[in-house]
Amino acid sequence: MCATTLTDENGRGFIIPIGGGEDRVKEMQIHSKFVELSGGADAYIVVIPTASMLSETGEDYNRIFSSLGAGKVEYLPITRRLDCDNPTFFEMLDRATGIFITGGNQLRLSAILGGTLLVTKIRRQNAAGVPVAGTSAGASIMSEHMVAGGQGNESPAEGTVTLAPGIGLTNAVIIDQHFTQRNRLGRLLTASSFNPFLIGLGIDEDTAAFIGPDNVLEVVGSGTVTVVDASKLTHSSMWDAKPGEALSLIGLRLDVLGEGCRYDLKARVGYPPPQFLGLSSGSDTDT
Amino acid sequence: MCATTLTDENGRGFIIPIGGGEDRVKEMQIHSKFVELSGGADAYIVVIPTASMLSETGEDYNRIFSSLGAGKVEYLPITRRLDCDNPTFFEMLDRATGIFITGGNQLRLSAILGGTLLVTKIRRQNAAGVPVAGTSAGASIMSEHMVAGGQGNESPAEGTVTLAPGIGLTNAVIIDQHFTQRNRLGRLLTASSFNPFLIGLGIDEDTAAFIGPDNVLEVVGSGTVTVVDASKLTHSSMWDAKPGEALSLIGLRLDVLGEGCRYDLKARVGYPPPQFLGLSSGSDTDT
Repeated sequence: MCATTLTDENGRGFIIPIGGGEDRVKEMQIHSKFVELSGGADAYIVVIPTASMLSETGEDYNRIFSSLGAGKVEYLPITRRLDCDNPTFFEMLDRATGIFITGGNQLRLSAILGGTLLVTKIRRQNAAGVPVAGTSAGASIMSEHMVAGGQGNESPAEGTVTLAPGIGLTNAVIIDQHFTQRNRLGRLLTASSFNPFLIGLGIDEDTAAFIGPDNVLEVVGSGTVTVVDASKLTHSSMWDAKPGEALSLIGLRLDVLGEGCRYDLKARVGYPPPQFLGLSSGSDTDT
Repeated sequence: MCATTLTDENGRGFIIPIGGGEDRVKEMQIHSKFVELSGGADAYIVVIPTASMLSETGEDYNRIFSSLGAGKVEYLPITRRLDCDNPTFFEMLDRATGIFITGGNQLRLSAILGGTLLVTKIRRQNAAGVPVAGTSAGASIMSEHMVAGGQGNESPAEGTVTLAPGIGLTNAVIIDQHFTQRNRLGRLLTASSFNPFLIGLGIDEDTAAFIGPDNVLEVVGSGTVTVVDASKLTHSSMWDAKPGEALSLIGLRLDVLGEGCRYDLKARVGYPPPQFLGLSSGSDTDT
């Protein structure tokens, strides 16, 4: 993990978007690291299963995080906006040392949670140092500008992506999940190119970006995080393209980051895993 | 089209990889431009339908190119290596002013044509100024290093792509087709990163790259050509990744080029369509 951790009391907590489909039965590497960041045996993890229609989702995560050694796990059974006024839930979030948002439908999440005091609590806790993780829809909703929907398998074009406001834990990135599996490069390029200040994060299944308080992310999991930096575009046809017409985007930077790679969201620079930065002897074995 | 055309007698002919699934019934923009480059009413177009198992493919293209005003169109009924020794076919290729390679299976193409005098004839004709177009499998086979197969829907990883020798009209690029439609970014990134001198061209369906004698390509069609330049990679885990492990590739350049965009394969620079290079007044209309 990055050098800065939850013990840095001046920093916000980690923001941990996960690309969905993460390993929940074998090594559970991503969930393990989240539990560790949340305090391990001292952790009190609160799960928000609202994106899912499945009543068992909350219980599932209780079982997973408990099996990984989390001290205490509870979920908030929020299925409608009125639930977001429940003072018991506020009190639970105030005590949380880790918050986890499950997958499902991100518009369900934003439509039910958006503008409520509950979201304010989540933001305040994250700002105070509590890590917030989310998978699939729960990953998308973390940023200020959220990919709400759109088509995979398409070249970049204005109509391929729909944006909506997310819960705004960060405004540095816009997140897409199930990235390679659902062929979402076109819609992420479109989303990033609407306003190139946004860095696009395309997160594969069973893969997570652990975004530290220093805005350096580290990749954990079996797939990759594709980082799209559109800020150096020398040409974009965004404002000129006809509806449905394929966009031209010249000058994109792309980093494909596997396990252990890092990316500095402020400097917009990717780094290999630490072992490639030192003077390693390497291997000259023929293969 | 680019300024340099077939009338430049010092140059080779255009190389025109097409991403498959091109419009054959409406405007037939790509085929029209190929017929025009081949000489229009004076054209003698020779079609190589070998990649396809369908006996009617050759006849189909005869009909299409004739309907677009080509003077004469014939196809070579090559289905096995022995057919490649037929002197009648050599004579037809010697007179050709345009050569078209159909889609199908590129390994069928390379296994039947590879190493025969027929391929030498195609190369010599292209070097002498004759445009050669190919669609789908016929596009892949044009380059020295050919994408022979592999998986779509995958992150870059060594096992996701199989290379084989193509017919070598160019060694500047490696070509993949049905690009967005079949989610082939991962395998093209892998292919380009094996040896980053290769520029990866990911060509969408109904889209073509008209590569001129000056090695500047121009995009024609309804989709995009994605240009991958791996030459500025600051880190690649290619030599170190375990089998099946997702690759890390830091420092990729990516251009997504729609209709009218150009790319200079020597300078590795993309350009917008000409109207964006002049002092156009633009439109300030609110939308």
